[in-house]
Amino acid sequence: MSEALFFHAGCPVCLSAEQQFMQALDPARYSVEVVHLGEQKDRIAEAERYGVKSVPALVIEGQPFHINFGAALADLK
Amino acid sequence: MSEALFFHAGCPVCLSAEQQFMQALDPARYSVEVVHLGEQKDRIAEAERYGVKSVPALVIEGQPFHINFGAALADLK
Repeated sequence: MSEALFFHAGCPVCLSAEQQFMQALDPARYSVEVVHLGEQKDRIAEAERYGVKSVPALVIEGQPFHINFGAALADLK
Repeated sequence: MSEALFFHAGCPVCLSAEQQFMQALDPARYSVEVVHLGEQKDRIAEAERYGVKSVPALVIEGQPFHINFGAALADLK
């Protein structure tokens, strides 16, 4: 089982991506944690360490994937 | 079983995303077709109809998700 992190900020683009991606990932392979960076600003630094530049973003096995564009991380600080 | 389409153009960003996403999607829910738009230029119009603007992109149930940025569709024509 691998860890996956889905970073978002509650924006419409984020929520649409969250709904589709969370149900699309293989539940036998991934345990997914959803992190709302608007509410958990203390985790923005963690997202940045993974290379996340904008939300929504999915981190799979440490690799960041930016999915469409909702908001820049800098705008959440 | 739903259809998913992964559009790419052979670029490094595309291949990295393809490897991670193709193995991350739930095989019980999605049958995924990979389309190389550099080699199948006749399918660029199809990608555009789904709202795809750049590759790599994943279309799930008709909805386009742009994953990171490899190349603009316009540059593949």
